[in-house]
Amino acid sequence: MARKFNFSAGPAMLPTSVIERAQAEMLDWNGSGMSVMEMSHRGKEYMSIAARAEADLRDVMAIPDNYKVLFLQGGASSQFAMIPMNLVGDKQSADYINTGMWSKKAISEAKRYITVNIAADTSDSGFTTVPSQDQLKLNPDAAYVHYTPNETIGGVEFDYIPDTGDVPLIADMSSTILSRPIDVSRFGMIYAGAQKNIGPAGLTIVIIREDLIGKASAGTPTMFDYATHAENESMYNTPATYSWYVAGLVFEWLKELGGLEGMAAINKRKAEKLYAAIDASDFYANPVAIHARSWMNVPFTLANPELDAAFLKGASERGLVTLKGHRSVGGMRASIYNAMPEEGVDLLVAWMQEFERNQG
Amino acid sequence: MARKFNFSAGPAMLPTSVIERAQAEMLDWNGSGMSVMEMSHRGKEYMSIAARAEADLRDVMAIPDNYKVLFLQGGASSQFAMIPMNLVGDKQSADYINTGMWSKKAISEAKRYITVNIAADTSDSGFTTVPSQDQLKLNPDAAYVHYTPNETIGGVEFDYIPDTGDVPLIADMSSTILSRPIDVSRFGMIYAGAQKNIGPAGLTIVIIREDLIGKASAGTPTMFDYATHAENESMYNTPATYSWYVAGLVFEWLKELGGLEGMAAINKRKAEKLYAAIDASDFYANPVAIHARSWMNVPFTLANPELDAAFLKGASERGLVTLKGHRSVGGMRASIYNAMPEEGVDLLVAWMQEFERNQG
Repeated sequence: MARKFNFSAGPAMLPTSVIERAQAEMLDWNGSGMSVMEMSHRGKEYMSIAARAEADLRDVMAIPDNYKVLFLQGGASSQFAMIPMNLVGDKQSADYINTGMWSKKAISEAKRYITVNIAADTSDSGFTTVPSQDQLKLNPDAAYVHYTPNETIGGVEFDYIPDTGDVPLIADMSSTILSRPIDVSRFGMIYAGAQKNIGPAGLTIVIIREDLIGKASAGTPTMFDYATHAENESMYNTPATYSWYVAGLVFEWLKELGGLEGMAAINKRKAEKLYAAIDASDFYANPVAIHARSWMNVPFTLANPELDAAFLKGASERGLVTLKGHRSVGGMRASIYNAMPEEGVDLLVAWMQEFERNQG
Repeated sequence: MARKFNFSAGPAMLPTSVIERAQAEMLDWNGSGMSVMEMSHRGKEYMSIAARAEADLRDVMAIPDNYKVLFLQGGASSQFAMIPMNLVGDKQSADYINTGMWSKKAISEAKRYITVNIAADTSDSGFTTVPSQDQLKLNPDAAYVHYTPNETIGGVEFDYIPDTGDVPLIADMSSTILSRPIDVSRFGMIYAGAQKNIGPAGLTIVIIREDLIGKASAGTPTMFDYATHAENESMYNTPATYSWYVAGLVFEWLKELGGLEGMAAINKRKAEKLYAAIDASDFYANPVAIHARSWMNVPFTLANPELDAAFLKGASERGLVTLKGHRSVGGMRASIYNAMPEEGVDLLVAWMQEFERNQG
């Protein structure tokens, strides 16, 4: 059977060429006589794979030298606790911007450890927009400011990087990292679960400014202390070796594609095509403010929710799968991460138009 | 190039048939048009993979119904904190048995949260034996007793399950799980990093009696609370989906092999062959008390450490790799986990004998 166009919000599609390479190397990586899965993480073969992946990520994202790149486990959900535990230091509180489900989860966990000030909250809009810079009520004495540049469920994305002065800015980029160039130096820390734009689930990447490491609160588990991992090149214990390797193949693929500039041009085109199809129709709707629309996650509803099942069935027959919207939003959600080919978006738009005509 | 016989202590060999199947299914699992890596963990395809893996593990280990099986991230090193955080309850202390490097790491982390009583300590022997039942100084009011049935570095393994009365027994089985049948009902909790006998690194399996769940101390991160994962079938957040899938293939392989009875017969034979070769020689030595010798990790030294490099070089030329001993022990270490074919042990024994003759 042909490969499907899989619009899953995550785990999500990987580039076919990356999977093909992983398949080709599966039994015998580079003449080593081993699968990467079987390699000691302290052996020279695996060390070279890990180092190459980090170097390529640094290159692709232009990560400054005063940032550590950590390859961790546990997902963004673990970071929600690690961030207050590691970063509050001798401050009392941190600022959080609430723009949706993932912001709320980060806030909820942080409140268990520190005082959380809500610097902005877009719940009144039904989480269909992002606050502007002048709407942010920032506390100059906060330990840090946390936000979610792209909300996977609501499909809202910041169109700017908040200016937080000297207060470190912390970003959950799980669903937008690597989608376009970003200026890493604007952030204290960036983190992302791998399973959207990086690689297989089970890997979490943390990019953290070195001066923020080493201030963990008493009682922080050793494995939750960024210093543990920074001091051991993410090999304090056995890391998620295979996910790290596949992530490295994705970074190589990005470089071949022209890096994040090249990726951004493709992503912009894909998103514009899909939003244009929605906006050209009275049958489909997306509730998000134009300037806050996500390039990665595009929720949309049909004029009549009773037609959802028929839409999904026809889509599936055309190889377009995992389009059902999150239960909290309903309708459809097309996640069009880096690895979704433009052809998948074209086929989706064509099906949307055909379906609407058939209902007309 | 042919596949090597890889004696790594972990990540370690996987059964060739498992890797071949993962390779065959890489681009398109079961006609789904997706790699398992690309599947939403909440989709019906992946849910079936996850459920099948758990059912097969329950079957293979004969896990009683009053135990939960959790598929987590973070390695045994995360468990070292999770155990005291979750299991101390309203008790004050726990008993720990110290038989080597991994016991010590568990103890060191537990001391950050609770009072640790050392129930036995074999450091005087250089960690070359295990304490007998009557040497255990158990506190009947302890929250639990923790031990390491098999020490990966020292190559010592308990030849019995400690009797701890009504106090729950907690075992770090990372390097011995699935090597033979065990009576799960004797344990409060068993945990194991996957990368030795289960599957790819990045997955940690926890088998826990249900009555021990739900007593986490205040301040335990949500992701470190067993209740979080037990209540959500290990899908509170995105799990390590691909490692879980490959682990499932390993469980199927074990069933085809005759389950743990069948595996134990092979493992016993492999270990006996290797220890017999060591004991038959004055050139090779293993310091571990006979009754405490590990079936899984066999450290041995050469009469003259200056010959180590030549031994390793010749072994490598014969496809026998990753035999260098842990830096804290020196010499050699042959880890002969489930997936090491008996042929690999035979070839190692033949090389040991040839090398000794050449030095004679």
